[in-house]
Order: sequence, then C-alpha cells, then structure tokens
Amino acid sequence: MGKEITSREQDYSQWYNDLIIKGNLADYSAVRGCMVIKPYGFALWENMRDVLDKMFKDTGHQNAYFPLFVPKSLFEAEEKNAEGFAKECAVVTHYRLKADPNNKGKLIVDPEAKLEEELVVRPTSEAIIWSTYKGWIQSYRDLPILVNQWANVVRWEMRTRLFLRTAEFLWQEGHTAHATAVEAIAETRQMLDVYADFAENWMALPVIKGVKSPNERFAGAEDTYCIEALMQDGKALQAGTSHFLGQNFAKAFDVKFSDKENKLDYVWATSWGVSTRLIGALVMAHSDDDGLILPPKIAPIQVVIVPIYKGDEQKAILDEKVKTIVAKLKSLGITVKYDDSDNARPGWKFAEYELKGVPVRMAIGIRDLENNLVEIARRDTKEKKTVSIEGIDFYIKDLLDDIQSAMYTKAKQFRESHISVTDSWDEFIQLLDTKGGFISAHWDGTAETEDKIKELSKATIRCIPLNNPLEEGKCILTGKPSVQRVLFARAY
Amino acid sequence: MGKEITSREQDYSQWYNDLIIKGNLADYSAVRGCMVIKPYGFALWENMRDVLDKMFKDTGHQNAYFPLFVPKSLFEAEEKNAEGFAKECAVVTHYRLKADPNNKGKLIVDPEAKLEEELVVRPTSEAIIWSTYKGWIQSYRDLPILVNQWANVVRWEMRTRLFLRTAEFLWQEGHTAHATAVEAIAETRQMLDVYADFAENWMALPVIKGVKSPNERFAGAEDTYCIEALMQDGKALQAGTSHFLGQNFAKAFDVKFSDKENKLDYVWATSWGVSTRLIGALVMAHSDDDGLILPPKIAPIQVVIVPIYKGDEQKAILDEKVKTIVAKLKSLGITVKYDDSDNARPGWKFAEYELKGVPVRMAIGIRDLENNLVEIARRDTKEKKTVSIEGIDFYIKDLLDDIQSAMYTKAKQFRESHISVTDSWDEFIQLLDTKGGFISAHWDGTAETEDKIKELSKATIRCIPLNNPLEEGKCILTGKPSVQRVLFARAY
Repeated sequence: MGKEITSREQDYSQWYNDLIIKGNLADYSAVRGCMVIKPYGFALWENMRDVLDKMFKDTGHQNAYFPLFVPKSLFEAEEKNAEGFAKECAVVTHYRLKADPNNKGKLIVDPEAKLEEELVVRPTSEAIIWSTYKGWIQSYRDLPILVNQWANVVRWEMRTRLFLRTAEFLWQEGHTAHATAVEAIAETRQMLDVYADFAENWMALPVIKGVKSPNERFAGAEDTYCIEALMQDGKALQAGTSHFLGQNFAKAFDVKFSDKENKLDYVWATSWGVSTRLIGALVMAHSDDDGLILPPKIAPIQVVIVPIYKGDEQKAILDEKVKTIVAKLKSLGITVKYDDSDNARPGWKFAEYELKGVPVRMAIGIRDLENNLVEIARRDTKEKKTVSIEGIDFYIKDLLDDIQSAMYTKAKQFRESHISVTDSWDEFIQLLDTKGGFISAHWDGTAETEDKIKELSKATIRCIPLNNPLEEGKCILTGKPSVQRVLFARAY
Repeated sequence: MGKEITSREQDYSQWYNDLIIKGNLADYSAVRGCMVIKPYGFALWENMRDVLDKMFKDTGHQNAYFPLFVPKSLFEAEEKNAEGFAKECAVVTHYRLKADPNNKGKLIVDPEAKLEEELVVRPTSEAIIWSTYKGWIQSYRDLPILVNQWANVVRWEMRTRLFLRTAEFLWQEGHTAHATAVEAIAETRQMLDVYADFAENWMALPVIKGVKSPNERFAGAEDTYCIEALMQDGKALQAGTSHFLGQNFAKAFDVKFSDKENKLDYVWATSWGVSTRLIGALVMAHSDDDGLILPPKIAPIQVVIVPIYKGDEQKAILDEKVKTIVAKLKSLGITVKYDDSDNARPGWKFAEYELKGVPVRMAIGIRDLENNLVEIARRDTKEKKTVSIEGIDFYIKDLLDDIQSAMYTKAKQFRESHISVTDSWDEFIQLLDTKGGFISAHWDGTAETEDKIKELSKATIRCIPLNNPLEEGKCILTGKPSVQRVLFARAY
C-alpha cells in the first residue's frame, strides 16, 4: 500500500537506506559523498540540537563561530592532528573562476587566482581555534574559556553512507581552555556525561561510557572518552567523543598563561563533539521493517491525527472535533499534525506515518465520534486501542512517556543481551560471526595485538569502560598477561 | 577608565571597528577576510536568528540543509548567476594533503588527489538546490516547496570589513518553488515584509522597501526587492533582499511540473536572504562614541546589575537583595546579568557595559538599599534615575519597551531628515558630499545613466520604493524624460 521497504533480514544495509530516503530524512546529492538533509530530517536534527545546546549552556558554555578555512601552515602545526586528517582534506587552491575561452558558457579555474597558501576546509577546528585563543589568553583570569560551535565540517571519506559517514556533515565541537590538567579532565568527563544523558534520556539510546585505546584516540589527544551504542545488527557505533588534549595544541600554537604566582605555563585543552551521525544511530537502534521509530522526546511530529470520513459534511463534523483535540494537545506542549489532505486514503496515510516513525497515531471516524471514541495506535509496539475522547490529551501525554521509556528499555535489553564474555579466541570469532554485539575479553594492552585482532576479526576495541574492574587474565589472542577486560565489537 | 574608543567624528570607520572588536562582538582571524564571531556577538546573532526562524516557520517554511560544495558543472548552469559569482569563488581542487618530502613536519597538496571536477564553495545555493529540486518535483501536488537554510557561504571579496563584508559569512537563504508566477511574486513580497518587520520591530532599524534597478539585481533574478537602511554617517546599507527568479533556474536545471490539466511547465522560483551583515547595520545605526547601543528585544543581556560595596558583609547583604530582584526579572522573561566579579571597580564595569550596549544598568549600593532604592541608567539616552525597589521588575519591563521604541523613533527621525529631494545635479553632488543620506531624484531609466551617475558621484540607486508615485520630470544627469524619482545614496 505504501512505499516498499527492504526488510532487515533481507538486506540490513538496504533497509537502512530505504528508511532514510523513503522516510524523507535525507537524500543523495549531486556532490560525491555529500547529502541533502530534507525538512523532516532537519526538523529531527533541530530538536536534537536544541536539547544539546541547552545542555551546553546549562553547563556554562557559550556559542561562537570560527572560520571554515584553515590555512595550511596552521593546519600542520599540531603534527599528530595534521597527520590524522591530512589524508581526507578538501583543499581550496584558487579564489576565482573565469570564462573558458574554448567553451562558450563554461567556466574554468583562473590560474592567475592561485592562493599563496592553500586553505584546508576544516575537518575539525582545533587548529584555527587555538591559533585564535592565543590572542584571548594572557592570564589565569582569562580562563577557563568554555566555547562551543555548531558548524559544518568536511572529511573526504572514500566510502560514504547517509548520516553515518558523509564527506560534509553537521556537528558541534566544544573547545575549552583551562588553567590545570585536573580542570580540563573534569570538563572532558562532564561533557561525556552530557552526551550519555542526551543519548539515553532523549534518544532512548543506551550507551557505554569508556575510554579509547591509544590506537583509536583522536589525532592530537592525550585521551579520548566515548559513548558507544549498539545497533540492531550487532554492530557498535561510536555516538560521541570527548577529548582531553593535554597541552598539545597550546604548545603547537604557543598559548601560555600566567598563573596567580605570575608563572607562565601552557594552557590545558579539551574538545568534544557529536554530529548528524547520531541520526544514523537513532534509525538503526530503534526502527523496524515498517519504517522509522522515533523517540517521542525528539520526534518532529509526536501525534498524527487521520480523519476517516465520506463527504464534506462528515469532514466538517470531524474538523470541528479535531480542532479542540489539537488545541488541548498543543497546550500540553505536544506536537501534533492533523493530516486532512484529500489526496490519499487513510490506509496510505497510516503506512506513511509508520514509515516516518511518528510515535502516536490517532484515527477519528464518524461512527467512533458518535460514541466519543478515537483509535490510538502506538508506533513502537503497533498496539491499537479505542479510547474515550474525554481526557485524551492526558492519555496521550502519558502514552508518549510510556513509549519513550519502552523504547529505551527495549534497546537496553537488546544491548545487555549482546554483551558476551569469553576467554576463547575461537568463541570470540564465532560470537562476532553469529551473534555480534560487544565482547568482553582480555587484551595484553599493546597496539600490535589490537592491530592483529582487528586484522583477523574485523573487530576493534570500542572502549575500556569507565570504572572497569581490574581482573587478572590472559590476552584473548596472545595469551599474554592482562589486567582487565575491554569491549570489542565490529563497528560502524 | 575603560577601553579607548575612537569617536565617530575623528574616524567613523575606526569607530566602527573599535566597537566590534572592543565590544567583543568579533575578532579578526588568521584567514584572510574571515572573522571570528565571539560569544557576545554570537549570542546577538542567535537572538536575531531565533526571531527570524520563527517568522519563517510562521509563514509556512521549513529548514533543510544542502551541500557546501557546488560541482563546477552545476555552478555554471544558470549563466547569469554563474557570471555574477565566478569572480569571487573559493575553489576546491584537491582532496588530500601529504607529507612534504623536502620539509619534515610540513604538508603539501597531493598532486595525485586532484578532483576530476572542481568544487565551488557555495557563494549562494540556487544551483545546488535547484539541481536537487529536480528530483523532488513532478506535479503541482509537489508545490509549493517552502524551504530555508541557515548556512555559511563564501564570497572572495578583495576589501573586507568585519560583519559588513567578509569572505565567509553566516546567513539564511530561502529557496521556494511555485506553480505560478503570481504565487512566486507574492512569496517574494511576503518575505520582504518579514524582513522589514524584523528590521523595524526587533532591530529598531527603519528601512525603505523597494525594488532594485536592473543593474543592481541579483545575478539570475527577474526582480530583486530589498530593504535599505541608513547609517549615521549618511551612507545607505542594503539589509536584506528577496528575489523573484522567474523560471531561470527551473530552465537551467530542467525542473518541470505537470499542472492540474497535465500540462508541463517550468517551475517558478524565489530566493531571499539576510546575513550577519545585519549586525554591522545594527552597530552603525544606533551606537555612540561610548560604545554599542543594542535594542532590548535582541540584546544578549538586557539588564546588568552592578553592586557597590565594601567588604564581604555588605556584599552578602546586596547578594541577598539582588537574588530576589533577578528572580523577579527572570520571571518576566528579562535577561539579566549580575556582575559581582571582584576584579574590577564599579566605574570600570559601568564603562564596560556601556561599551557592550547593555540597554539597562542597575547600580545597587548599601546606602541606597537602606532606602529601598537603586540607580537605573538607560544606555540609549544615558539618563539616570533613582528608583524604588518596590515594583522594579515592572518598571524595568516598561523601560525596556521605552528604549526599544525610542531607538526606533530616533533612527527614524534621522532617516527622515536625511531624505533630500533635488532636481539639480550640483545640489545632488553637494548633498552627497555634505549631508549624505538618500536623495530622491529623477532618472531616465537607463543602465548607462546609472553607471555614469555612479562613476561621477559614487552614489548608486538604492531602490525604487514600493508604491512609488509616478511624477513627470527630467533625469538629474541627462535631462531626459523620467516618470518617477528613485532613491540614490552612497552605500556600504
């Protein structure tokens, strides 16, 4: 009846693309690896952004905006960071086009407009921001600087996927400057907590907080903290990162401050970010073969009302009734859409809003109305109920809360049932090939072993969970002594 | 006592820069022609953006996001648009850097990572958006499309000025698609009204609505409507534009729709935008030699409270009282900052918040408190009053309204007294050289004359006001017959 969606079992990856495209979240674009975020997808992003923005402000941060371009000489100043991103940089080399003398109506790059110094389109903004902070910081009185930026960034990925990995993406990047390492680490951890809070309580997405192994650290960081989520196909997804940058960028850009005793020292830094990738996580964690399932707290439309009628007279009666219901719902802060368009039948609309993941659907017909009843369907469980219009506003408010927590519980149960503990390499591989999920296993702590495990199993260390218990054991691959288990998984 | 500001009389242009930099709105950056928008400036932009965003949504628009890059072949598709922007395009030609073999730690552009097709960093998004709309539009049922985008754009300007003209700037660009010319023109006019409403009722900035002469049209438009404001130095500033694009982009990208009779036709388009340039207008329209003067309705801080005390005991008493005042103000939706920092004297703080343009300052001292009084100073007129704490919240609420309307009235009076009517070329020049402002004069309607007037006087036609009365006359330069007066000015 509606648009056709590939099932998860048939082709998980195609299922994901179908949901994004047919669910009207995004579209491919004419630019390799870049996508168009459509109005419905952008409304979802706006809701997420607004919640996060408030969380950042509530923790003392302010927004600012720094240039899109990073001159090459600044970009290369912090060597590890530069090395990490050099391979995927879009580079501006010219500042003008001119008419093609050989091809009327066409343009060519004007060779006379070559830049003296190339500009890198920011893949991340530490370099441009720390070159700016140098001018803002003299003394401890100028610290901390607690700044966030909402921006687009570009990383020239060879294999792209809608939302999960695109050449250009939208994100926020916090960049803070501190007088002490202790304060910077506390900031790093605080923002990790903010991200986890957002993922769990708004996206209904359970996450594991942890720290990355050195191999998986952000280029230029001393420590990378992360939140890791689990998708329905058993693959993990890094949903946010918070970096303790030590004094690396302060040293690269010579940013010093004088402390209370007038002693000069380099400034301590953090950076932290989440991106439109979160939308990919949201889709893959919750949705089913009929379409998206969006958590009520961030869904662009929380309730859709579909009228069922024949003829204008019936329609007018329904309109009247719906008007009062909509007003009541709105007064409770509920986002509601009354779809009374006459170019689709109710059944088609039902399928369309299921595809779009609207949490609650209300169908209202003339016969029901005589009995003061409507039909309520919840998207997550597909349960339908006939409910009295009396008190429908509070009924729906509670139902939205129920859906939000049911989605979290379901995802949490899935996640919990997909953390396996093993001490056997064969079982490790077997688990990855069959069940997927996180595997808690011993690791000897070396980068070589981590690389070898990745090569053999395609699994990486997702994180060393915070407050990880120490436990003596033997490395899953090498048998060498280990002091703790870490979480492995195949990942997006 | 505070930071030194150049006076307007001494050097208007330096005065402007001082306000931007010392008022903490923005900073120069390491990238030629690009600026850093500092937290205080960005908070101002956020307030402006949020009001505009609501206005756009209230008129039926949704936000979306399109790629930063425009492939050259798309960019050149609409010839006039391409020609208009080709001279100021940042062009991405490569997608990778690599280690410089001759210079350890440095990077060079990897010649093997040359793009097959160059990418233009969007100077405006008609091309990328209309190439996308082609996939979205088949029938009249898909119309109208009412989409807006908040984004950064890049125009490689040779002479840049903070906020007024920067290589990268932030803006919004609406791009709508319609079934008929009438509907598209109505949309163009509606958005012009939205801009004028915003400028006048939020920024306290009186504007003249009009239409551009063909010379000054947006490249690719059939008609460009604009709002024009007047700065204190007598120069005009284009504060926003709304374009009727006809079928130009639909033809360039072959975007057709079938109407109700199943006939195919090209789609009609509009685009409209305002940018961070508005902040430049705001600064130049209202501020004085002591600093910024921000309209209460968009000021990041509406009220600052400065305590005057000696010792911790007095401070504690003030803190207690201020706490209740702050709570009351906040409950009225007023943004208030209590600056009790101990690293500056009250006098320094007074100067600092004057510089930053905070509309209302409250000074509260121990002696006043005994009499239940505070001192209130308004930033626009610098009037001070001693006022009872009883009912201070409503007093301030009213005062903020008064300031908002007084700022508008003052700017309006200035503007009205700077519209001169003349029929003499000598007077035309003399007015421009002495008084400045808008000059209402006859023009013969030709592009040649317009060019010549610009060359001789540095004045351009700012607009032909809407509902301009027809009036027979002779062109100010050529003496040829003219049917109406138009508004000339020197402009930013």
